[in-house]
Amino acid sequence: MKNLKGALLFAQSGGPTAVINASACGVFEEAFEHGEITQVLGAAHGVVGILNDELYDIGLEDREEIHRLLTTPSSALGSCRYKLKDFKDDDTDYLKILEVFKKHNVRYFLYNGGNDSMDTCNKIGEFVNYHGYECNVVGVPKTIDNDLYGIDHCPGFASAAKYIATTCMEIDLDGRVYNKGMITILEIMGRHAGWLTAAAAVATHAGHGPDLIYVPERDFNLEKFYDDVKRVFDKNGKCIIAVSEGIHDANGKFIVEYGAANARLDAFGHTQLGGTAAFLVNFLSDRIDTKYRAIEFSLMQRCAAHIASKTDRDEAYNEGRAAVKAAVEGRSNIMVGYVRKPGKKYVPVLEEFPLSKCANTEKKLPPEYINEEGNMITKAYLDYVVPLIEGESTPKFVGGVPRFANLKKILAK
Amino acid sequence: MKNLKGALLFAQSGGPTAVINASACGVFEEAFEHGEITQVLGAAHGVVGILNDELYDIGLEDREEIHRLLTTPSSALGSCRYKLKDFKDDDTDYLKILEVFKKHNVRYFLYNGGNDSMDTCNKIGEFVNYHGYECNVVGVPKTIDNDLYGIDHCPGFASAAKYIATTCMEIDLDGRVYNKGMITILEIMGRHAGWLTAAAAVATHAGHGPDLIYVPERDFNLEKFYDDVKRVFDKNGKCIIAVSEGIHDANGKFIVEYGAANARLDAFGHTQLGGTAAFLVNFLSDRIDTKYRAIEFSLMQRCAAHIASKTDRDEAYNEGRAAVKAAVEGRSNIMVGYVRKPGKKYVPVLEEFPLSKCANTEKKLPPEYINEEGNMITKAYLDYVVPLIEGESTPKFVGGVPRFANLKKILAK
Repeated sequence: MKNLKGALLFAQSGGPTAVINASACGVFEEAFEHGEITQVLGAAHGVVGILNDELYDIGLEDREEIHRLLTTPSSALGSCRYKLKDFKDDDTDYLKILEVFKKHNVRYFLYNGGNDSMDTCNKIGEFVNYHGYECNVVGVPKTIDNDLYGIDHCPGFASAAKYIATTCMEIDLDGRVYNKGMITILEIMGRHAGWLTAAAAVATHAGHGPDLIYVPERDFNLEKFYDDVKRVFDKNGKCIIAVSEGIHDANGKFIVEYGAANARLDAFGHTQLGGTAAFLVNFLSDRIDTKYRAIEFSLMQRCAAHIASKTDRDEAYNEGRAAVKAAVEGRSNIMVGYVRKPGKKYVPVLEEFPLSKCANTEKKLPPEYINEEGNMITKAYLDYVVPLIEGESTPKFVGGVPRFANLKKILAK
Repeated sequence: MKNLKGALLFAQSGGPTAVINASACGVFEEAFEHGEITQVLGAAHGVVGILNDELYDIGLEDREEIHRLLTTPSSALGSCRYKLKDFKDDDTDYLKILEVFKKHNVRYFLYNGGNDSMDTCNKIGEFVNYHGYECNVVGVPKTIDNDLYGIDHCPGFASAAKYIATTCMEIDLDGRVYNKGMITILEIMGRHAGWLTAAAAVATHAGHGPDLIYVPERDFNLEKFYDDVKRVFDKNGKCIIAVSEGIHDANGKFIVEYGAANARLDAFGHTQLGGTAAFLVNFLSDRIDTKYRAIEFSLMQRCAAHIASKTDRDEAYNEGRAAVKAAVEGRSNIMVGYVRKPGKKYVPVLEEFPLSKCANTEKKLPPEYINEEGNMITKAYLDYVVPLIEGESTPKFVGGVPRFANLKKILAK
């Protein structure tokens, strides 16, 4: 619907990334420029903040701090993992959301997140429209996993990939320094798709990276793994391996679950699991007598704004701006995102996708990005990923450390 | 001895750092400028390379690659952890070293390392001089642990501290994002001294850092730890904690050893230990029902050249140059290093120290850097550390990742 006059509400969802706030920055800065938008609101902790009517009045924030969001990692407004039910089964939450929308006269709703969040966004859009409430709903993509359908790549992915590639190079240099045997296993995020783990291959192709890379797109076999490692280790006296946390056997059982037999239960009955890398170190250490290191890139890979990709950051910012423009121009129930033009040169193009198509579809690594053996990533992946990790986005440093944005977070009444 | 004409031999020892190669760069570039130095040699894997007569002819390297060492982490020549015996007990190794020195006419020997390496350097200097062989021996300090005696700070420490402080900030932003409880434990290097773990306090004082910090200078008590965490968690629903890997109880037993009872032995009889953070997560998870994360900064903290301190890098380079100058000017059995002038402004001054004094003395965090409770670092530490982590040294990036130095490593005959 065009010519809507009212508030814009923006919310962040799912796991944080190094550039999710760059999208927030783009949304806010674009929103401030439109007369139709009478108030700019940000939900505390995603949809949960909407349900609780905890909305920050972004107009009261210092504009310099808003701009500093461009280089501030994590979700400045807070995030959640709350999953809305289908409103055909239970519309309690939706009615509450509609009430909050009405209270604040929310006419533009922008939701920033991954698969699940696009689903949430889609359901809210459908519900309020069905109830005759005029509100334009636009999704802004975000996930380090890069598994969102339709778009070429997802904001947040490239910055994580740049951290992973760079850190693999640095660890490779460190891990090969001694005149003694050493096997190093790096564990990288990705439960179902290997986009991030594949970034270790950028290091390998730059001359300082893992010897072996395993992603969830291929079934993982422990005996084959042992053979691969043994071959490299016998030749070089060193072996550096990158694995996705989500590698699994032919039956779909996660390799990390193999370690569950030895895991302890805490007093509350939760299983305390070691990681995949730790399990693989245990497995190998019964067969190859050398020094081992298991290294998890953990949260660092998704929040390292100090080494974010400038390309990624700028695209995330542009997507935020584009989402506001689309909403103001009257489009709804869409997600904005980048595709790239065919050809050698990287030419990204912003497009719009129906939200119904984006929700709950997972994009995996294409087969041609993985070698036949299933233990390395091909040059084809590099052609895809290198343009995305080009350029360095660094925050301003004060006193030797980054000066990140500090929002006042004043609740709208 | 002055006016010595012959080869200069440089070797790197101990654990790598983000700026150890910056010292190498300083040594090589200074050495090339001196007519007395007829050949510039670099030992493969420290003293082991000398014993095996594996010396690279650095003069054959591309000068651009040499300069690129300035921003390349880890030890480009390779390192070792070989400990020489006292030559009064067994002089086999020393006689071999003397032979190699004579073969290559080594008249300047520079050794880059920490406590143990300064000891090695000292012994070699004493031995060759005792045998009437003229050779000036100079130590170049290096250790992320910052525990070297006499000097104000040690090259490599500040870059690790900068990585730790920055990463603590990023993890803090990430770890507080959800509207749910979470306890995050960060494990930082330092077996005997808390210099590195204390750097987490820079993040805390910048508004985004751990709530609690524990260093090995204070005995660690599990019950006190639980009380500290419970208090913070009950108040905020979150708690972020930084611990040194070397925290220990009042009997000197490492906390990580508490977990040893449950540890498994591999087929070769080695104990497979989890880390300190993992043990503490297990300990707390029996008492506080929430989500946990144990994060080890692992090798990343010592090899992250992409976020090295420019101050640290430049000082490491200058120390390399100064060591060559001192040797050429006839001084021997000394180590170069920085002290700082008293006063508010940071004024570093290069000085020389007798090697015999530097070897095997450990410098710990002074008591005034730790709060009375023993669970936080004071402002006094910040005054010390912030000038050292000022400025960002980043390598040149090509194709989205750092372009590190590649040496040809051609052996001298």
